[in-house]
Amino acid sequence: MSAQPLSDSGTLESPVLSPVRDLRRVPIHPDHWYPLAWSKELKPGKTLGVRFAGEPIVLARTESGKVFALEDRCAHRQVPLHAGVVDGESIRCGYHGWTYDCSGRCIDVPYLGKERLPNGVRAYPCREVAGLVFVFPGNAALAEERPLPEFASVSDPAYKTRRFGREVKCHYSFMHENLMDMNHQFLHRRQMGQMQARSLGRRRGDDWVEVDYTFSRQAGKQPVGEALVFGSSKDRDQSDKSVMRIRTVYPYQTLQIRSTEGSLVMDLWIAYVPLDAQQRTNRTFGMLSIRKPGIPFALDLAWPLLVWFTERIFKEDRWIVEREQEAHDQQGADWNHEVFPVINELRDLLRSCGGRSVIPIREIGYDKGEC
Amino acid sequence: MSAQPLSDSGTLESPVLSPVRDLRRVPIHPDHWYPLAWSKELKPGKTLGVRFAGEPIVLARTESGKVFALEDRCAHRQVPLHAGVVDGESIRCGYHGWTYDCSGRCIDVPYLGKERLPNGVRAYPCREVAGLVFVFPGNAALAEERPLPEFASVSDPAYKTRRFGREVKCHYSFMHENLMDMNHQFLHRRQMGQMQARSLGRRRGDDWVEVDYTFSRQAGKQPVGEALVFGSSKDRDQSDKSVMRIRTVYPYQTLQIRSTEGSLVMDLWIAYVPLDAQQRTNRTFGMLSIRKPGIPFALDLAWPLLVWFTERIFKEDRWIVEREQEAHDQQGADWNHEVFPVINELRDLLRSCGGRSVIPIREIGYDKGEC
Amino acid sequence: MSAQPLSDSGTLESPVLSPVRDLRRVPIHPDHWYPLAWSKELKPGKTLGVRFAGEPIVLARTESGKVFALEDRCAHRQVPLHAGVVDGESIRCGYHGWTYDCSGRCIDVPYLGKERLPNGVRAYPCREVAGLVFVFPGNAALAEERPLPEFASVSDPAYKTRRFGREVKCHYSFMHENLMDMNHQFLHRRQMGQMQARSLGRRRGDDWVEVDYTFSRQAGKQPVGEALVFGSSKDRDQSDKSVMRIRTVYPYQTLQIRSTEGSLVMDLWIAYVPLDAQQRTNRTFGMLSIRKPGIPFALDLAWPLLVWFTERIFKEDRWIVEREQEAHDQQGADWNHEVFPVINELRDLLRSCGGRSVIPIREIGYDKGEC
Repeated sequence: MSAQPLSDSGTLESPVLSPVRDLRRVPIHPDHWYPLAWSKELKPGKTLGVRFAGEPIVLARTESGKVFALEDRCAHRQVPLHAGVVDGESIRCGYHGWTYDCSGRCIDVPYLGKERLPNGVRAYPCREVAGLVFVFPGNAALAEERPLPEFASVSDPAYKTRRFGREVKCHYSFMHENLMDMNHQFLHRRQMGQMQARSLGRRRGDDWVEVDYTFSRQAGKQPVGEALVFGSSKDRDQSDKSVMRIRTVYPYQTLQIRSTEGSLVMDLWIAYVPLDAQQRTNRTFGMLSIRKPGIPFALDLAWPLLVWFTERIFKEDRWIVEREQEAHDQQGADWNHEVFPVINELRDLLRSCGGRSVIPIREIGYDKGEC
Repeated sequence: MSAQPLSDSGTLESPVLSPVRDLRRVPIHPDHWYPLAWSKELKPGKTLGVRFAGEPIVLARTESGKVFALEDRCAHRQVPLHAGVVDGESIRCGYHGWTYDCSGRCIDVPYLGKERLPNGVRAYPCREVAGLVFVFPGNAALAEERPLPEFASVSDPAYKTRRFGREVKCHYSFMHENLMDMNHQFLHRRQMGQMQARSLGRRRGDDWVEVDYTFSRQAGKQPVGEALVFGSSKDRDQSDKSVMRIRTVYPYQTLQIRSTEGSLVMDLWIAYVPLDAQQRTNRTFGMLSIRKPGIPFALDLAWPLLVWFTERIFKEDRWIVEREQEAHDQQGADWNHEVFPVINELRDLLRSCGGRSVIPIREIGYDKGEC
Repeated sequence: MSAQPLSDSGTLESPVLSPVRDLRRVPIHPDHWYPLAWSKELKPGKTLGVRFAGEPIVLARTESGKVFALEDRCAHRQVPLHAGVVDGESIRCGYHGWTYDCSGRCIDVPYLGKERLPNGVRAYPCREVAGLVFVFPGNAALAEERPLPEFASVSDPAYKTRRFGREVKCHYSFMHENLMDMNHQFLHRRQMGQMQARSLGRRRGDDWVEVDYTFSRQAGKQPVGEALVFGSSKDRDQSDKSVMRIRTVYPYQTLQIRSTEGSLVMDLWIAYVPLDAQQRTNRTFGMLSIRKPGIPFALDLAWPLLVWFTERIFKEDRWIVEREQEAHDQQGADWNHEVFPVINELRDLLRSCGGRSVIPIREIGYDKGEC
């Protein structure tokens, strides 16, 4: 008996066996704003080469501070423009000096007359918000009408924000599922002790799904790191009614914790940007805002511990989702046997909001056949 | 003229040109007991992730010392169970805590009622013999009737046994051929001087083939390391009639040396276990038993030298068989031009006892066509 | 608008849009003499394993100093002969001792009678010229009639020669185009300052194309390294008429600088030898001869600076052509949009002189389709 999809008639939910698309082969939909870099990574007068789902994109910040995004290939010999030079408000390719303005138009070829300049390269809509450089990689005509994310807590002085993120070698969908299924507290048992999540209910809209949880401690006492992030357990013992809400609003995800009194004590915004064409690697951009406690500077003093704690948690998550991706690569299909309702709704959402094409994958495994 | 199979009419043996299966693409037959780990690698209360021909398998030793083997994938999200926790006589997955007993049955999902537990994972027959953990990866119904190897010398106090082995990046068949063709002494000329092997004859059964050799020194004097392993050349000069018998009993191999008086002075048992699905890497498990000489502790004192000597020999063998595999990868076919009769019989045996399917390989080379 | 071939009607030259072969998939033609090693790499009594377009070739130098080239695979088990032993005027395979003479004939198998020796391996015509070992990898019948390159400056005591080269991860055609298009001075702006190349005209024959340039400095002053290689700018200001001629004579390339008086001050010969079957890596063999100035030892004293300068230039060139290759790998086709006439003639030459087959490539990219 093998670990393939089962048709048990669990009362929670039966795994879907209809011929749905393999979620791990659904490309992220390009018609949204995606963060491709932190603002501080892009210095004045410099370029930065980034990627979105295999597309090379060069970000440039002119001396005047303006940021723009072009296809990261010179129209001439296809070498990356990010190896070139910012020259005034334009980029000059580092090979033969072809020059492009912020709209991608070729405005100079040093050894060619101005009247016979070739065409240029693609330009992408580009915005800077809350310390992130957002690019709209899809149909540029839709960029204006699509909203950029809002970051209320980040700009609110009542909160302190930690920016974090790393490359993670998996499809973005594993990231959404990891965060939304709080039964995975068992993974963090060394950091958090044994916590039991209880789902309070879930809701769904066209492009979003959310779920609420409360938590109770099964054994052990609360680690210090956790108290910092989620609040001290003095406030949330048996009578604790703190509620964690995890929400995917395509393509972003948020996690918010409200105290019993309804105050927002923690506010996480997070995005997972596919880097390679196969979308087997994503770069995670997270903004974790923590409400400052009454005592001045208490949170600042505790900050290094919070950084350490969140890094440990994130490292465990990264490790496990990369193992999920490896399993998919070897099995060549999605053998997941999901029984938790909100995760099945989330999977359905990611499928329906994703791109229409199918990511072609290389099969690594080998079907043994009979022996 | 290229190094392709030849049709010379050698009196020894003509290379077979009939459309036989490429031996390097014959999978090992799974209906045998294979060693997948040394006992000491599997600590009480711990797991160990191993592989057989691409199949991930988790070995677990419970606190009570019992060993069992399961498919190394949680039925839920396919992550490796070896990253989980041994809990009593079961394994708990490290992600969401799904729990399996030694038969692979799922006995707990923390957030699901016991009455609606999903199916589990595959279990493999598993036995511990002579410090090795054996698993039966094929049809479990055949496990009982298939014999486990016997290790008479290992348990005999008249012998001292060295356990050794490494990963070798080649198909298992190269390993069998390397050991059985003693004309490859030339490879070990730096370790052994110039030895000439003489074949005394060969025999074959349904699932075995064997050959006997005697040796004579061509030049130089006997190295100390060799004297330890094969006996001093004082005893085996011109009148020496020590006989080396090499035998493949599918899928294992043995090499035994008997002195002129018929006493078994060296007894090697060895197995080559494919790790990856393409079976281009094997893990070698060797048990080399040396009969202790009359002088107490003489062998113990000499042991470090023997270890050094056998490691050197094994390193040379490993290097050359990996070059054979590389050549096959580049040529995309088996261009071997074998002229030594017992090797051709061995190749035929490995083909006929192997799995029936064909290992799909990726062609690396490039056919130049005409220019 | 994407960086694909354009149909602009530039007066210089319109990119060719006819269904021509992708130049990056044209194999180099094997019916020429190619340098596969520096003479000093091949010691007396030793072997050296090299490659030409994926073909493994062993070079051997006997104790008497004779050099020969064979297929680098034993006819027996296909292991590399370069791991064997030079024995008199022959090579003995390191595995079972099969022995080959310089014509590739098998002259000994230690355990086989001389009367039943198997066939041998392929031999290649081989010559040593000017410190390079040349091999003719194609049709050996054509070797005699095909000329070896001449190296007049290398043997002329009026010149000092620097031998250099490295592996570069790109198709050989990128190397030819890089050197011939002197508008790429912009790439070396840090080493050379801003130089403007002016094309004086181009010529073409059946198997060659050449172009002449003069240079003028746009800004900054002449770096010392450049003065050494190209001559001091005192001699070549506004009235300077030094001419650089770059010539591809298939499959080699030369760059010569003549002073206003017509004296040859710099003479570079260079070849790019594909190493792998996909011809995505080449080994560059360069011989840079500089005419010695009147002052004795001046050039010797300046040599370290010249080495440093040329290494820096070569490193920049290597980096950029490897980016060109990467772009081709990702795009799966040649999107180059060449507007400089001599480069288009060069590309046409490389296509017409190259091998007739097509290099099969693996597509790495992923066509997103509609979303």
